[in-house]
Amino acid sequence: MKARNPHSVLLGFLGGTEGLFAKKTLEITEDMLSSYKNQGGFDLLGRTVDQIRTTEQVDAAKSACCDLNLDGLIIIGGVTSNSDAAQLAEFFAEHDCKTKVIGVPVTLSGDLRNQFVEATVGFDTVCKVNSQLISNVCLDAISAGKYYYFVRLMGGKASHVALECALQSHPNMVILGEEVAFSKLTLKEITNKICDGVEARADQGKYHGVLVIPEGLIESIPEMYALIQEINNLHSSNVTEADIPSQLSPWAAALFKFLPSFIRRELILHQESDNSAQLSQIDTEQLLAHLVEAEMNKRTKEGKCKGRKFSSVCHFFGSQARGSLPSNFDCNYAYVLGHICVQIMAAGLNGYMATVTNLKDSTNKWRCAAVPLTAMMSVRRHLRGPGAVPIGRPVIHPSPIDLKAESYAVLREKASSFLLDDFYRTPGGIQFEGPGAGTKPITVTIEEQDYLGDIEILQDYLDKVRTILKPGCSREILKASISSIASVNDVLKFMSAPLNTELPLYHFS
Amino acid sequence: MKARNPHSVLLGFLGGTEGLFAKKTLEITEDMLSSYKNQGGFDLLGRTVDQIRTTEQVDAAKSACCDLNLDGLIIIGGVTSNSDAAQLAEFFAEHDCKTKVIGVPVTLSGDLRNQFVEATVGFDTVCKVNSQLISNVCLDAISAGKYYYFVRLMGGKASHVALECALQSHPNMVILGEEVAFSKLTLKEITNKICDGVEARADQGKYHGVLVIPEGLIESIPEMYALIQEINNLHSSNVTEADIPSQLSPWAAALFKFLPSFIRRELILHQESDNSAQLSQIDTEQLLAHLVEAEMNKRTKEGKCKGRKFSSVCHFFGSQARGSLPSNFDCNYAYVLGHICVQIMAAGLNGYMATVTNLKDSTNKWRCAAVPLTAMMSVRRHLRGPGAVPIGRPVIHPSPIDLKAESYAVLREKASSFLLDDFYRTPGGIQFEGPGAGTKPITVTIEEQDYLGDIEILQDYLDKVRTILKPGCSREILKASISSIASVNDVLKFMSAPLNTELPLYHFS
Repeated sequence: MKARNPHSVLLGFLGGTEGLFAKKTLEITEDMLSSYKNQGGFDLLGRTVDQIRTTEQVDAAKSACCDLNLDGLIIIGGVTSNSDAAQLAEFFAEHDCKTKVIGVPVTLSGDLRNQFVEATVGFDTVCKVNSQLISNVCLDAISAGKYYYFVRLMGGKASHVALECALQSHPNMVILGEEVAFSKLTLKEITNKICDGVEARADQGKYHGVLVIPEGLIESIPEMYALIQEINNLHSSNVTEADIPSQLSPWAAALFKFLPSFIRRELILHQESDNSAQLSQIDTEQLLAHLVEAEMNKRTKEGKCKGRKFSSVCHFFGSQARGSLPSNFDCNYAYVLGHICVQIMAAGLNGYMATVTNLKDSTNKWRCAAVPLTAMMSVRRHLRGPGAVPIGRPVIHPSPIDLKAESYAVLREKASSFLLDDFYRTPGGIQFEGPGAGTKPITVTIEEQDYLGDIEILQDYLDKVRTILKPGCSREILKASISSIASVNDVLKFMSAPLNTELPLYHFS
Repeated sequence: MKARNPHSVLLGFLGGTEGLFAKKTLEITEDMLSSYKNQGGFDLLGRTVDQIRTTEQVDAAKSACCDLNLDGLIIIGGVTSNSDAAQLAEFFAEHDCKTKVIGVPVTLSGDLRNQFVEATVGFDTVCKVNSQLISNVCLDAISAGKYYYFVRLMGGKASHVALECALQSHPNMVILGEEVAFSKLTLKEITNKICDGVEARADQGKYHGVLVIPEGLIESIPEMYALIQEINNLHSSNVTEADIPSQLSPWAAALFKFLPSFIRRELILHQESDNSAQLSQIDTEQLLAHLVEAEMNKRTKEGKCKGRKFSSVCHFFGSQARGSLPSNFDCNYAYVLGHICVQIMAAGLNGYMATVTNLKDSTNKWRCAAVPLTAMMSVRRHLRGPGAVPIGRPVIHPSPIDLKAESYAVLREKASSFLLDDFYRTPGGIQFEGPGAGTKPITVTIEEQDYLGDIEILQDYLDKVRTILKPGCSREILKASISSIASVNDVLKFMSAPLNTELPLYHFS
């Protein structure tokens, strides 16, 4: 930024959005930044409940940007923050505020993912730390040979962190929320699935194992989701926590009563701002361990399963995987995104996100672009029960795992080997030098996903066609071209949904 | 070993002591070892409840060693395993078993520590992983600015892991079991101490923080120790878990009733083999968080403390810090100890431990020695309540933290800066190359502890005195020497306790 214009000033807002509303700024200098570079956490500026949505919040943001005479406002975050960034950009443009709003994809959960965004900053680091811990647990499990470890990973509603970590550390079992939602597996079916795994291992004389689940799993189980929705409804109607159990529908009450008391208590806790359950507060791993133990005892009693008694240890890997020193990949990715933001500002673009594609290739082959935020947004009805986003408000939705994608196929292919062969992989701690220092998320390197690269290839082809078909070309060539292109046109008309955006993409190099 | 004699054979016992008793061996070859070298965990051989103590166990060990015609038996472990090694060495010698028994100091808890043993293998790795996680939590705490994290660390009864991790990661507060035991702090006093810290931070506008405690803390609190002892007694008298609460003494019952229900349940769980409470199962961090929250609410109500409501998140770092890829220091240390074992075997020594001192210096200055296990053993009465080791049986006792030592002094000196300045230190994951790859435990590098080096210096002086005082020296010199040495003799007679061992030390280079 200083290289473009030495008089540029970079301000940070102290305490995230709260700092923005209150105009609490900190000028960020090279000198100050030097001791924070390549460090984890957000302690230079702090973070808050990151939301700019209500009329008051949007007005406060506008007046802050106007008063401070900002050329640009860079909003760093996940799906929520970037949805807010898009709305804010629109609002600023409508209300003659010169500040351009730019979004940057940063979130550990990895659920801001689409053809433009192959990964978010922080995802690699969090997955590496979690994979390190899972592999430690795996080695501890196989050394002792007598415990099943139930490990729950932080990472929001989607299971990207769990998938990536499973590919990195090879635990015996992993249950993704998306699989459960797709197959509509009940709590009982999930329990049986795990017990079948435990039984298959016991047949081989193995009485240890590691199971990984995402924190979003609980909401993916149909009956649990319905129960959580009922509890949410009661919360919204201001029913007190003590009265909730008595006001549930008969079947929900029956499920509620079936659950162990610690889960009951956690389910009726006060909810997060988006009205979903406080996922990190629900000990799903303990619930499953509890149910699996009961089922295994039953199977043993019935003589179906012999050998050592089932014994479990539960873990939740939450904040200990956050605030880590970031991986080299995340540092590089963040630096490049920062540079793109400067380019976007210089180009005077509003409502764009800084993106990098072709991440699986070496850094000098990364493709930098500015993508209109609207290209990632869509409108949905009833996204989630009563707290749903009202119809007509476009937002960036969290992307679930694509069960047809290559990463998931790799996991499925190896599932039975993971289950039975103790094929544990030990990535160790994040390395900053030497072998392993340059590794990237496996899910990023597996997928064929260089979307912007493919667009360039297409445009190359179109250019070539145009060159060949200049006036003067033969009648036959022209005829062949018309029929080919007409056919392509028909196919595309059939396949394409209308695009969300009229804004063009911008490429930087 | 193969270099000394290519026909040597190294056998491993599958499943630790159980494998020994059952003569389940695995010949360990260079080839097999290659994929396990520098890896964590014990999955090549597995581990069990490592004890060789009862008559049946000792007899089984002897018959295994005789039948397999072993020249040596190497026992790897902490205070318990090495105590057993000493007893076994004595038993083998008495019963004409040619097998020599050698101990190796390996335990994550670091409580096998004395003038000969500066660190145990595994301690550095566990402390590095835990410090990495604590520092992640610290950065997360300061980023959000609204939670107090209560982190409990695995590490047995002594607080070595907590002390080392505190020196590595600089959390706001750390409470060591040895401090609490020394000052006889009650649960109430500990709670108040933490609340005073929280209050002092609130005065500076800080509403976050990280507190680290060792899992052994609970037993260091006098009234909790007494309660645990009563529960142990009732267990020994076969009182059922349901009946325990009603049979406690009045004051113990009152304390028991005062504790939150989850702690009550955990306290009456079945005990470990040595009859102490299952430390890893008692959520002391949750107990403290619970008590601190109650006290903070009270102080807020009384107007003593203003600002944001106290809010806590609890963590137990247990098995996720085990099974890690070992640090370079631990790998080097273990290789050197392995070489010493071969030397000890070649020298035909029985009942010795392989040791390395001067660890803080570069590897080529490390001092290798064989130390008689008896030199580390002592006899104590009433070590711990009813499950105590009977009088007359010498064992190696776990070493508590020396509150007079330099490491603790450093911690105390920095305590108020740690508390108020958020002086967090971020060591990151274990590095295998580049800067930081060669770091050692801070407690090892801080202490002046080259015991064997000092013995060499002393012997040098004695040699010099002997050289000067050869027949032919002057009358004056002789007179001065006699009075000096007589004085030294008097002082030492006064200071010295009788040594536990008649066996000589052996030095290897």
